[in-house]
Amino acid sequence: MHFDTQPVFPRGFRCSSRNCGIKQSGRDLSLFVSDVDAAAAAIFTRNLFPGAPVVLGRETIRGGVLRGIVVNSKVSNVATGEQGIANARRMAAAAAAEIGTTADRVIASSTGVIGVPLPIEKIESGVRGMMQELTADPMFGAEGIMTTDTHPKALSTRVGAATLTIVAKGAGMIEPDMATMLVYIFTDARISATSLDRMLRDAAFVSFNMLSIDTDTSTSDTCVIMANGLAGVVDEGAFFDALQAACIRMTEIIASDGEGATKLLRATVRGATDVTQARLIAKSLINSPLVKTMAYGADPNVGRILMAIGKCFDITIENDRVMASVNGFPVIENGERAQFDDERVRAALAGDVLDIEIELDVGEAEATAYGCDLTEGYVNENAAYYSS
Amino acid sequence: MHFDTQPVFPRGFRCSSRNCGIKQSGRDLSLFVSDVDAAAAAIFTRNLFPGAPVVLGRETIRGGVLRGIVVNSKVSNVATGEQGIANARRMAAAAAAEIGTTADRVIASSTGVIGVPLPIEKIESGVRGMMQELTADPMFGAEGIMTTDTHPKALSTRVGAATLTIVAKGAGMIEPDMATMLVYIFTDARISATSLDRMLRDAAFVSFNMLSIDTDTSTSDTCVIMANGLAGVVDEGAFFDALQAACIRMTEIIASDGEGATKLLRATVRGATDVTQARLIAKSLINSPLVKTMAYGADPNVGRILMAIGKCFDITIENDRVMASVNGFPVIENGERAQFDDERVRAALAGDVLDIEIELDVGEAEATAYGCDLTEGYVNENAAYYSS
Repeated sequence: MHFDTQPVFPRGFRCSSRNCGIKQSGRDLSLFVSDVDAAAAAIFTRNLFPGAPVVLGRETIRGGVLRGIVVNSKVSNVATGEQGIANARRMAAAAAAEIGTTADRVIASSTGVIGVPLPIEKIESGVRGMMQELTADPMFGAEGIMTTDTHPKALSTRVGAATLTIVAKGAGMIEPDMATMLVYIFTDARISATSLDRMLRDAAFVSFNMLSIDTDTSTSDTCVIMANGLAGVVDEGAFFDALQAACIRMTEIIASDGEGATKLLRATVRGATDVTQARLIAKSLINSPLVKTMAYGADPNVGRILMAIGKCFDITIENDRVMASVNGFPVIENGERAQFDDERVRAALAGDVLDIEIELDVGEAEATAYGCDLTEGYVNENAAYYSS
Repeated sequence: MHFDTQPVFPRGFRCSSRNCGIKQSGRDLSLFVSDVDAAAAAIFTRNLFPGAPVVLGRETIRGGVLRGIVVNSKVSNVATGEQGIANARRMAAAAAAEIGTTADRVIASSTGVIGVPLPIEKIESGVRGMMQELTADPMFGAEGIMTTDTHPKALSTRVGAATLTIVAKGAGMIEPDMATMLVYIFTDARISATSLDRMLRDAAFVSFNMLSIDTDTSTSDTCVIMANGLAGVVDEGAFFDALQAACIRMTEIIASDGEGATKLLRATVRGATDVTQARLIAKSLINSPLVKTMAYGADPNVGRILMAIGKCFDITIENDRVMASVNGFPVIENGERAQFDDERVRAALAGDVLDIEIELDVGEAEATAYGCDLTEGYVNENAAYYSS
């Protein structure tokens, strides 16, 4: 699957972004717009304290039709009570007025600190005039939704005559369960809202839902897909394949840019008795602070891999069948540390990507999880996030 | 409950420790001995890759009688196959010969790097003569079992005519489930092995099993209790109360000295529908990297408390009844961030201990979990643990 390094929007989609005064400097407000109504689906966080935009978004998406998405960064509008819901409604209404549609066709998202009132007046005045600044470059929109991301995130690919584009933000408080982070997917393929919903859930199951930066599940996770149909009908199988591959690639991009991260971790578990167990073990590996610090230090302390498998107490394994490798180098054989030269393993652990591959040899199921290493940078960013 | 700052052994217990050449310098081998046979019980890690000493220990403890415990640090004898089991047996036999008992009355423990062969010859020659160096100071034994602990850990208390003494090591790879770390409990009270087993499990349930430094469950967790009866019979209720209080205090000592830790975190959840849910939520709070870094930075980013509750997807809560305080200062009221002055919360978050108290107001159950903050120190220690 080819992904454009210079992502473009599908036909009929554009965006703009601005500083509206929530951040001291830098873009803090983004607007994504389709020229025409688009079929749409969305999935949201399972956190029991969902943000006001998530509560409103669940209501909005029932209509299955969207014209636009408005997003602010820095303040997440979570744990803000009735006033928070009212502010989310005002934000959607302000964007709808600017676009020239109704509030029930606009998703409003907010990301940032939990528990701080949304500065709704800044957003209402900030959104005015954004339709005059629309651009065809998704990176502008991606910039306005960043929090601790070190770079804006967008990619696009082709499916037949159609284009598929993803704009996202990641960084921290990321272990999605039914959805993830902020992810907006745009296509000009013609697909029904029902099909979009099914395909989005299936694609997220193996991509965003297998991502963890820090085991903490955001209260704002939102993933929206809009299909405006301007490129006509495409083969749905091909579209799903492209969607899934693009979601996995964006998952890797987000993992690589996790807070403080210096490398992408991919843990693949094969030969498990069922997919649930394969997913559990893969997640255990990428969530283990001791595996993550081993990755950071390129320290050949590979016994930690067995620890992280073994702490999944209820899985089916046969200890003496377990094999593991790091970037293709065998480090565990038959449940024991393999004979190897430390320096060769140290070399295998270096680099921007660490693939940990496990063979359990007790079944046929497999899964891959995505994460990053744990560094001083994560601690530094999060010890003073509110105050900075 | 009073704990002696200068811990002493119960009658008939002594220890010695040495450098036997596994570590470059510092004590790496400890021997704990009772003058007479002692009733005994033990609990071990639930990790599916238990170390060879754990496999052997489960067999040994079935006899319900112990004379001694031998422990080495630096190498854990985990993931070492049949040779590892044979080495654990040789270690117990060598200590038994030195004590003048049989190998089935000695628990051998090892702690340190996973997957490295145990240097059994160093231990066999190292243990010879240790009976000539026995001392009544538990701190000597505590020193020989340290890995990344910054100080040796022991405490003692009185129950009637008897003494209860705990020697332990902690530091990292700690989220015990059925047992914990290395913890050795000695008493001269006369109690049956059956009663010891029941009391040890009950005490661990609310102490060591509610401790997490880093969510990683050690392959070597072992907790042993020996009662040699030299002080005669004591009231079992009073003994249990002392045991539980001592285990909780040792849990706090271990948490405070977690790898890189600057403070103890205690999360108490009240008003839950059942104890399982209360324990789950309390653990979620002390395991959240974002709560832990908030504690480290004394950053008033208290919305993260709601996030950590809400990511326990299957609990029963009513969002607008949830209250939370930090060191007595209310920060969440009715599921929303309370109105407060940031500087006052920053002051409340400072200090060596952070108590996070949650009131769910949907039931009567409660639980407390113990942990520590997450700092650059944790990352530094674990990015090169194998190599250092």
